[in-house]
Amino acid sequence: MGTAVTNSATTKQKLIRARTASTRLAQLSTEQKNTLLLAIANAVEANEASILTANREDIQNSELEGAMRDRLLLTPDRIKDMARGVREVAALPDPIGETLAEWTKSNGLKIRKVRVPLGVVGIIYESRPNVTVDTAVLALKTGNAIVLRGGKEAARSNQRLVEIMSAVPGVPDGSIELLDSSTRDTVQELIKSRGLVDVIIPRGGVGLITFVTENSAVPVIETGAGNCHIYVDAKADFDMADAIVINAKAQRPSVCNAAEKLLVHEAVAAKYIPRIAKKLTDAGVELHGDAKARAIAGSSIALASEQEWYEEYLRLCIAIAVVSDVDQAIAHINSYSTKHSDSIITSDEANARKFLREVDSAAVYWNASTRFTDGAEFGFGAEMGISTQKLHCRGPFALAELTSSKYEIIGTGQIRA
Amino acid sequence: MGTAVTNSATTKQKLIRARTASTRLAQLSTEQKNTLLLAIANAVEANEASILTANREDIQNSELEGAMRDRLLLTPDRIKDMARGVREVAALPDPIGETLAEWTKSNGLKIRKVRVPLGVVGIIYESRPNVTVDTAVLALKTGNAIVLRGGKEAARSNQRLVEIMSAVPGVPDGSIELLDSSTRDTVQELIKSRGLVDVIIPRGGVGLITFVTENSAVPVIETGAGNCHIYVDAKADFDMADAIVINAKAQRPSVCNAAEKLLVHEAVAAKYIPRIAKKLTDAGVELHGDAKARAIAGSSIALASEQEWYEEYLRLCIAIAVVSDVDQAIAHINSYSTKHSDSIITSDEANARKFLREVDSAAVYWNASTRFTDGAEFGFGAEMGISTQKLHCRGPFALAELTSSKYEIIGTGQIRA
Repeated sequence: MGTAVTNSATTKQKLIRARTASTRLAQLSTEQKNTLLLAIANAVEANEASILTANREDIQNSELEGAMRDRLLLTPDRIKDMARGVREVAALPDPIGETLAEWTKSNGLKIRKVRVPLGVVGIIYESRPNVTVDTAVLALKTGNAIVLRGGKEAARSNQRLVEIMSAVPGVPDGSIELLDSSTRDTVQELIKSRGLVDVIIPRGGVGLITFVTENSAVPVIETGAGNCHIYVDAKADFDMADAIVINAKAQRPSVCNAAEKLLVHEAVAAKYIPRIAKKLTDAGVELHGDAKARAIAGSSIALASEQEWYEEYLRLCIAIAVVSDVDQAIAHINSYSTKHSDSIITSDEANARKFLREVDSAAVYWNASTRFTDGAEFGFGAEMGISTQKLHCRGPFALAELTSSKYEIIGTGQIRA
Repeated sequence: MGTAVTNSATTKQKLIRARTASTRLAQLSTEQKNTLLLAIANAVEANEASILTANREDIQNSELEGAMRDRLLLTPDRIKDMARGVREVAALPDPIGETLAEWTKSNGLKIRKVRVPLGVVGIIYESRPNVTVDTAVLALKTGNAIVLRGGKEAARSNQRLVEIMSAVPGVPDGSIELLDSSTRDTVQELIKSRGLVDVIIPRGGVGLITFVTENSAVPVIETGAGNCHIYVDAKADFDMADAIVINAKAQRPSVCNAAEKLLVHEAVAAKYIPRIAKKLTDAGVELHGDAKARAIAGSSIALASEQEWYEEYLRLCIAIAVVSDVDQAIAHINSYSTKHSDSIITSDEANARKFLREVDSAAVYWNASTRFTDGAEFGFGAEMGISTQKLHCRGPFALAELTSSKYEIIGTGQIRA
């Protein structure tokens, strides 16, 4: 069985449908939304065969190999994981309708700040089809309509998943709209649709995120780019530092909270760098570094270019620099990082407190791996991404961050003097 | 005494200075910041003569007349008001450093979400020089650096005010930067300075706001446009409705929370429209309306164009439409409004609750004037503006909305499994 990848509606028509759906979704009760979510989980499982068929066609049509092919691939287990994820979101508390603040003014006006949906959420993402279900369900749970612009490699998988979710009885028409992925025009149309879409969330590489951020007329939440640092201070426990550096770099190098840079205090550099260099090399990690690190560890470390200090490797490679103290470590991080996650390893509380306070990143750690910056690890349940901007939300963002607020004011005829 | 309006630093240099200042401002204590604010208030008062001289030069150089000239004009009383405003901000609580949430995970990680400054705030505004002081002081109070791009008419006044504030001992160099207002290039440079500036707030007419929103690579908070509605329901108290309509339209027609449109339930239209039309006309208000309103009140009402239903008059003019019920009133508002402030006048609680819930605006009123949408009226003290977007903040925004948050995580060597 083949799945068609055409849809005759224009982007504008789809966005208008989503806008209309958003007003209906905003009025659904928590129970109604959870019922829809559980029905979606069941429908995803019940349609496993046709999802796998569509995915097989995507795999055959793509020229992806290795890790990229694996990101696109769906299996019966991955489909079960998707459905399980949907049920987990259904079980989370509903933030919509929550009273955020409430007070009465001396003139008798009663003011209530209440949590409401954002409206229409746009997602621009790359090849992983599970994002289609994960994000649609987070949007529905919070009473938002969602417009998805996935990668062209996953076109058939995404279309099948959207068809299955949209066909669940009770899901308002237009709640989940999928844009044509065969042309970049749909990205342009989406990011220029001010007034129809309330927020765009780009999920993918730094190129995609930069393009969307710099060109969108719709507000954006920047996600994901993570040039994360571990700073080993003069009073670090080396065993703890080893475990954290290896975990943060090598446990899953392709993710945004993996460490990309290692800074070492000059007082311990001669002792610590050779030791960690050996352990990193044993773990298959390629070593780059500054002149001071190379002077200590020699030719096992390649000289890092200035540009590299700004970049994510997203692979088994780390750059090592020697710094004179915690202040220089903080200054280095604030100059080069993407403001995602950075950690200090030390037993010196004053230095740790300074680092926590002065490093300008979404998540700042003392004696722990940067790999914990994650919605589930923080206890938020499923997440939409990790925000590296300062507006609206910062760090792991999940249900509460997919909402806005409004003021309801009740009077008895008050006018302004 | 003349004041120079040149400043040899480029926009980029000013933005880098502001970025540097922001890291120092972020570390100031509440007491340090309040001391600076009180010194700024004193300095503004002590320098009244040179401020008035600079302002007189601006007035002489501008060709502004009437209300526009009045917006630019400074007087001894207005300077005292500015200083009083600064002292009021000093007296407000400092949101920075507040613990927003705190919890310990089962693996022992202690997570704290703490309120931090945004960093560098950019303001693009038009002729009123008091905005220069008001916004700079709100930024300093919240540990942010500010970059100001005011109107060219106020160039000398703004420069003198920035010089006075910047010269206060203890204000970090670069905390308050003023961009050249003689060229539009500085607006372009500011809105493209992603990475140096954290948020841009445009304050002014709809043209300015639309230009900035559609072209900025830096996150924007949209402010101010207010196409506000009063809906007189079938069960409205006419005396209450009269007072609210006249107040919302005529008390101060040039502001964003003034009413621009009046919707009347068809069951009471024949009785209410002639009555309110007379009172509005007596208050000097020009009447526009739809065909049904004109059929009732005749030629005293000019036919409103389709475009007018989307627009703010910002003057003594109102458009009146007849609607069939509360649902049509809500649909009309959600189609045409700028999502600012809208009010229902009724004694029917079910209709009122529906209106409060379903009107998608920052502030929704039941039996009160829309004129209350204001930071001071809400009890927030001084405000930066009224946000009409859904991201980050919505409605009146003041100190708390000039902040972001970060996570501080303390461990004992935790790594991710």
